[in-house]
Amino acid sequence: MTEDHSPALTRTPLTYGMVGGGPGGFIGQVHRQALAMDGLAQLTAGFFARDETRCRETALDLRVPQDRIYSSAQEMADKEAEREDRIDFVAVVTPNHVHYPICKAFLQRGFHVVCDKPLTLEIHEAEDLAELAEKHGLMFGVTHAYNGYPMVKQARAMVAAGELGELRYINGEYAQDWLWQRLELTEHKQAGWRLDPKRTGRASTLGDIGTHLDNLATYITGLTPTRLLARVEALVPGRVLDDTATVMLEYEGGVSGLFWLSQAAVGHDNGLKLRVMGEKASLEWSQEAPDTLIIKEPGGPSRTVSRARGPMYPEATVYSRFPSGHPEGYLECFANTYKAFCSTLIKRKAGLEPNAADLDFPGVEAGIKGVRFIHRCVDSSERGAAWVDFAGD
Amino acid sequence: MTEDHSPALTRTPLTYGMVGGGPGGFIGQVHRQALAMDGLAQLTAGFFARDETRCRETALDLRVPQDRIYSSAQEMADKEAEREDRIDFVAVVTPNHVHYPICKAFLQRGFHVVCDKPLTLEIHEAEDLAELAEKHGLMFGVTHAYNGYPMVKQARAMVAAGELGELRYINGEYAQDWLWQRLELTEHKQAGWRLDPKRTGRASTLGDIGTHLDNLATYITGLTPTRLLARVEALVPGRVLDDTATVMLEYEGGVSGLFWLSQAAVGHDNGLKLRVMGEKASLEWSQEAPDTLIIKEPGGPSRTVSRARGPMYPEATVYSRFPSGHPEGYLECFANTYKAFCSTLIKRKAGLEPNAADLDFPGVEAGIKGVRFIHRCVDSSERGAAWVDFAGD
Amino acid sequence: MTEDHSPALTRTPLTYGMVGGGPGGFIGQVHRQALAMDGLAQLTAGFFARDETRCRETALDLRVPQDRIYSSAQEMADKEAEREDRIDFVAVVTPNHVHYPICKAFLQRGFHVVCDKPLTLEIHEAEDLAELAEKHGLMFGVTHAYNGYPMVKQARAMVAAGELGELRYINGEYAQDWLWQRLELTEHKQAGWRLDPKRTGRASTLGDIGTHLDNLATYITGLTPTRLLARVEALVPGRVLDDTATVMLEYEGGVSGLFWLSQAAVGHDNGLKLRVMGEKASLEWSQEAPDTLIIKEPGGPSRTVSRARGPMYPEATVYSRFPSGHPEGYLECFANTYKAFCSTLIKRKAGLEPNAADLDFPGVEAGIKGVRFIHRCVDSSERGAAWVDFAGD
Amino acid sequence: MTEDHSPALTRTPLTYGMVGGGPGGFIGQVHRQALAMDGLAQLTAGFFARDETRCRETALDLRVPQDRIYSSAQEMADKEAEREDRIDFVAVVTPNHVHYPICKAFLQRGFHVVCDKPLTLEIHEAEDLAELAEKHGLMFGVTHAYNGYPMVKQARAMVAAGELGELRYINGEYAQDWLWQRLELTEHKQAGWRLDPKRTGRASTLGDIGTHLDNLATYITGLTPTRLLARVEALVPGRVLDDTATVMLEYEGGVSGLFWLSQAAVGHDNGLKLRVMGEKASLEWSQEAPDTLIIKEPGGPSRTVSRARGPMYPEATVYSRFPSGHPEGYLECFANTYKAFCSTLIKRKAGLEPNAADLDFPGVEAGIKGVRFIHRCVDSSERGAAWVDFAGD
Repeated sequence: MTEDHSPALTRTPLTYGMVGGGPGGFIGQVHRQALAMDGLAQLTAGFFARDETRCRETALDLRVPQDRIYSSAQEMADKEAEREDRIDFVAVVTPNHVHYPICKAFLQRGFHVVCDKPLTLEIHEAEDLAELAEKHGLMFGVTHAYNGYPMVKQARAMVAAGELGELRYINGEYAQDWLWQRLELTEHKQAGWRLDPKRTGRASTLGDIGTHLDNLATYITGLTPTRLLARVEALVPGRVLDDTATVMLEYEGGVSGLFWLSQAAVGHDNGLKLRVMGEKASLEWSQEAPDTLIIKEPGGPSRTVSRARGPMYPEATVYSRFPSGHPEGYLECFANTYKAFCSTLIKRKAGLEPNAADLDFPGVEAGIKGVRFIHRCVDSSERGAAWVDFAGD
Repeated sequence: MTEDHSPALTRTPLTYGMVGGGPGGFIGQVHRQALAMDGLAQLTAGFFARDETRCRETALDLRVPQDRIYSSAQEMADKEAEREDRIDFVAVVTPNHVHYPICKAFLQRGFHVVCDKPLTLEIHEAEDLAELAEKHGLMFGVTHAYNGYPMVKQARAMVAAGELGELRYINGEYAQDWLWQRLELTEHKQAGWRLDPKRTGRASTLGDIGTHLDNLATYITGLTPTRLLARVEALVPGRVLDDTATVMLEYEGGVSGLFWLSQAAVGHDNGLKLRVMGEKASLEWSQEAPDTLIIKEPGGPSRTVSRARGPMYPEATVYSRFPSGHPEGYLECFANTYKAFCSTLIKRKAGLEPNAADLDFPGVEAGIKGVRFIHRCVDSSERGAAWVDFAGD
Repeated sequence: MTEDHSPALTRTPLTYGMVGGGPGGFIGQVHRQALAMDGLAQLTAGFFARDETRCRETALDLRVPQDRIYSSAQEMADKEAEREDRIDFVAVVTPNHVHYPICKAFLQRGFHVVCDKPLTLEIHEAEDLAELAEKHGLMFGVTHAYNGYPMVKQARAMVAAGELGELRYINGEYAQDWLWQRLELTEHKQAGWRLDPKRTGRASTLGDIGTHLDNLATYITGLTPTRLLARVEALVPGRVLDDTATVMLEYEGGVSGLFWLSQAAVGHDNGLKLRVMGEKASLEWSQEAPDTLIIKEPGGPSRTVSRARGPMYPEATVYSRFPSGHPEGYLECFANTYKAFCSTLIKRKAGLEPNAADLDFPGVEAGIKGVRFIHRCVDSSERGAAWVDFAGD
Repeated sequence: MTEDHSPALTRTPLTYGMVGGGPGGFIGQVHRQALAMDGLAQLTAGFFARDETRCRETALDLRVPQDRIYSSAQEMADKEAEREDRIDFVAVVTPNHVHYPICKAFLQRGFHVVCDKPLTLEIHEAEDLAELAEKHGLMFGVTHAYNGYPMVKQARAMVAAGELGELRYINGEYAQDWLWQRLELTEHKQAGWRLDPKRTGRASTLGDIGTHLDNLATYITGLTPTRLLARVEALVPGRVLDDTATVMLEYEGGVSGLFWLSQAAVGHDNGLKLRVMGEKASLEWSQEAPDTLIIKEPGGPSRTVSRARGPMYPEATVYSRFPSGHPEGYLECFANTYKAFCSTLIKRKAGLEPNAADLDFPGVEAGIKGVRFIHRCVDSSERGAAWVDFAGD
């Protein structure tokens, strides 16, 4: 860890509130443990569940003070805004359809926000949040947390340094199988809202995992799609939203891309993989073996680079925590996203200038792009897999 | 090996001639060594190269009798047809554009034929060969040899037995990088003709490796595409034919598919991989680790099945040669293709009925389908990646 | 997570102090982050470094109250013992040679202790600590943290349930290469004390990583060695302590074992691997891919079992945090060790009965066994690799 | 393939006879197919089985002339010696205990010999064969065929070129599980003789696979053991010979070594693996993925080198047959061993000088060393795992 980074920052930690994250969910606990890892922010307020008892029990478990347990997001925004010791930021970890009003409420009261992805149901909603944040001078993070893996940062740095030469092709996939059958017909809470158009929007799998793939590809290559063509489908009979999509892309500079994503691909756990091929070398990264990066050159060996085994680019090194061979995982990538967000915020509060590593977290622009990705894929698919331009609303 | 299969057949081996396969090539030697492995056919005649000296030297190395070294395919077909000890079949291992006239010449003289893929440049040419073979009652094999791997046969048998349940998605890729730069501008013999539209047809990579992928997918699943959509492109600037293609497919019964293939994908050797996902299980096979098959079920472990370690389906067992852990490779898959072809032919000559294992080699219909695949992809791509029906000329 | 486990426990968290863990070290930060993950204990006191400024800076970074920053372990034990809000336990993360006096000081003042491994330099010292803990009714944990991985617990449960049948052979290795050259001649802090007989004892690598291997083998199989034979050596010329050892073991019931361990094995990161072979099945686990367990049976496929993908034994499930495919790593295994220790302690304080999962952390007996392992290997090696009984002082 | 190597040699192929290799065996067929691959030798005589009918049927299948089917090895040696067109060499593929008399008979009649391993039951027998071969100026090959893999030759060349620096440790293992239960009590032919002391000698597994490991380690490193210490045991209760051995070795120059070998290690197919660690780099090769070699350096990536993907040492290139990604396997490694033997013999017959690649096959000295390895391990184990010198009878 660099000198000017986290250590001293722990002396003036932030406070945060959480909306969502009650019993039965998964991601709320991830946000909290990720934030606990570096000691940069303490949970101080919360509206965890609509059910008052469940909300209160969660708050007690988390040692949130009694007077800062709220019964709605709006109430929390309003009341925290009045406190002198108001929370520094809010973490929004609810189902998709309420991201927009909740984030808006907090931004309007002057709170920095971190929100889960996909950011909103509609593109204009996401853009609206961006405008609000801009207008109020607030930070807005979106937890495309897979960017937080050190070897993802190493990959990005390699591409930026030209180690791959001119890029030629981006091949990504994200395959899971937990929706291999109609789990949405059971009591399964996650499947329930994720496959309900009212709560998840025009698409399910595209939003849940497709946006991660889109984000990761752009994060590593620095390229934005110019147009795409998609077949969005449900492999499981009877399903009303997508569980699978196949997407051809064109990126800036004429680089071609391909995404395949599915949550009904029997045999896959959480298989997010990306290959970037350049004229001089290719790289390959897989979320399920996140501590390694594979680099190949024409006529040369396949090099498996372990995190921290040898020199890495500084932007990767700063987010590597343990010696090589001591596996880092999902929690660390999430913690790194928050570490950047919190470091920036602590420095801003102290009147200091955040450095490049501090600023290395996905912001509201990444959130907008994710929502656009969903809509463009559905647009294309509805036209029979026609090319559609990526830009625009 | 089953009782009625190869052993006894070696007592009355076949003779064959070869067209092509002179110095500098690669595949001719593969055909010959594959045929030598089981002792079912002996090389007895040949036209190996246009250059007379090179042709003769090759023939001498291969101990082909002096009087059966020919200076053209037509001459070989004509003269062999007149001999009492005429060859049983011919193996055609030339560049693509001369497959058609050569195969035709031999069929017309009553010879069984084995030809490399892609079978012809035009669909109607391939259909013409099929008609000729049919008319003369001749066998016609096409060396989509990857079908010869025992674990491919095991995969096919598993699908046929319903172990995967209803199929849902076929995801295949075939990536190489030997054409990562414009090798066709050098003296490289293979790159020269493969990227010359006159000798290779409308497409290069699609024909060279795409047809293998198409064939393998159909071989394992039993499904034929009904329509497809393709982006056919050259990643290497200035190249006049394709080195890469991305193909969305629809198969019979509404099964979706995706192929990605490239010979300019830096970092890939000979990466032919296929995943078939069903409602109950998925399978995964990779040509570079051909002795294993990976089977996965929802909520279950990933099972890596080694060839011959435990019971396999009989159609796989019959083509497995060594105990588990004793790697079989590329030569064995090729040898298995020829073993089937020769076993069938020996039995036919002896008035015996070939069994299912004998008949398990790709025939002229596979050859036609390969040529159709190439044309359909190019057709679609030329229309901007529009859906095109697979059937038809 | 089970109902009666962690959630409610967070409402009455523990406090702890730390000895060691100042700047330049590695493991102190691991202990602290592991403890932060579950919110079961808060750092409240510390003696982090001999240098007063470094100690104070560290304490400030960690928000330890000014009046609980100490200048010696003894002072901390004495003064904390006098406080009403005295810490619940101490975490000892110093070099090996001072474990004994420090632990002793805290035990004598009635504090529960968690200490790094190897526990002490001499067997009788470790036994002395055990007696003290016993006498005072105190808990004593030793961070053989690799036991904390869920798939290690799954492995242990499988063996206990008889899934492997009678055990036949235990084959373990632990290979690193960070001591591939004489790093101890540089300013490298860790290498300095680890290769200094005064601070590390009779053996270096045997203590640092060999004890983990010994502990893991016994944890998973439930078997203790009855005798062993060892070649203890330095591969790097000039080194005064061991960097490598090869150990043949005999376990209870006549099960054979083999360990190979090295910190000069060029090409290895943190390669702790264990294979346990039984009459019916074998298992294989590797620390660098900790979320999977490989199970094999005669004549059957190799099954790669992913954490949380399907049903696991309850003792593994309770320590699995994220869905399958969301990698857990080194920090989680450490956190699990502390989670068990803290859960037990919180329940004891509340007059509740800890359950089996709570008690699943390595205690002082594991610490004694580790020290004995070191001595037995050196004893054997000094006699030219003769068999020595494992038991005794 | 180099200019002066195989091509021209096929014009004057050798003839050979075979002793053993009848129905029910495995290795005879391997020898024959390996020899068929390069067309350097033709099977012309044979004594395949004691049972006359089975011998004759095999001969007919293999198209051996009727007058060269023999009813004993001695008869074959005698009668072939009298023929003008006598065979050039004999391949001996019988159970171990008759290797000695058979090889002796052929050497005494002036035939070159290739014999399976382990060469003989007793060291002095093997030495006797070496003397006979020397005396009569005859070639003697022993099929330690795993040396034939191109990446093994690449490994050897890398070590010889100093790419690993001073060697430090050799860690080899060879694990199978086909003898995981008492198969020798069934009708299983191989298990029957391999676990019968009369036919297999003092040790079973040590001879069957241990000798391969010993040979491979020496082949790659160029080092011979100076002393060893072994625990030789049967994991399967009731077994009269070994199925497992653990061996510590000391090599010339003080390099340490460790072998673990078992045929009752549930979960292993044919797991021959070798790691060689030097001061500058390490290498790792596994027979089950023979086309790759893994090279690692301190602080660097793990490099997986694919056969023929990039430049290799000439001694490896000459035995590489197909482009990278086209798997070679067990048959090719065997074929390479014979290719070397036959090339040497053809050149000797033609008065030409064999080159280094031709001479790269294991000879009678390798055979003697293998027998010595078996005896030394058993000697050590019988003394309770004491160190024994490797040299001597």
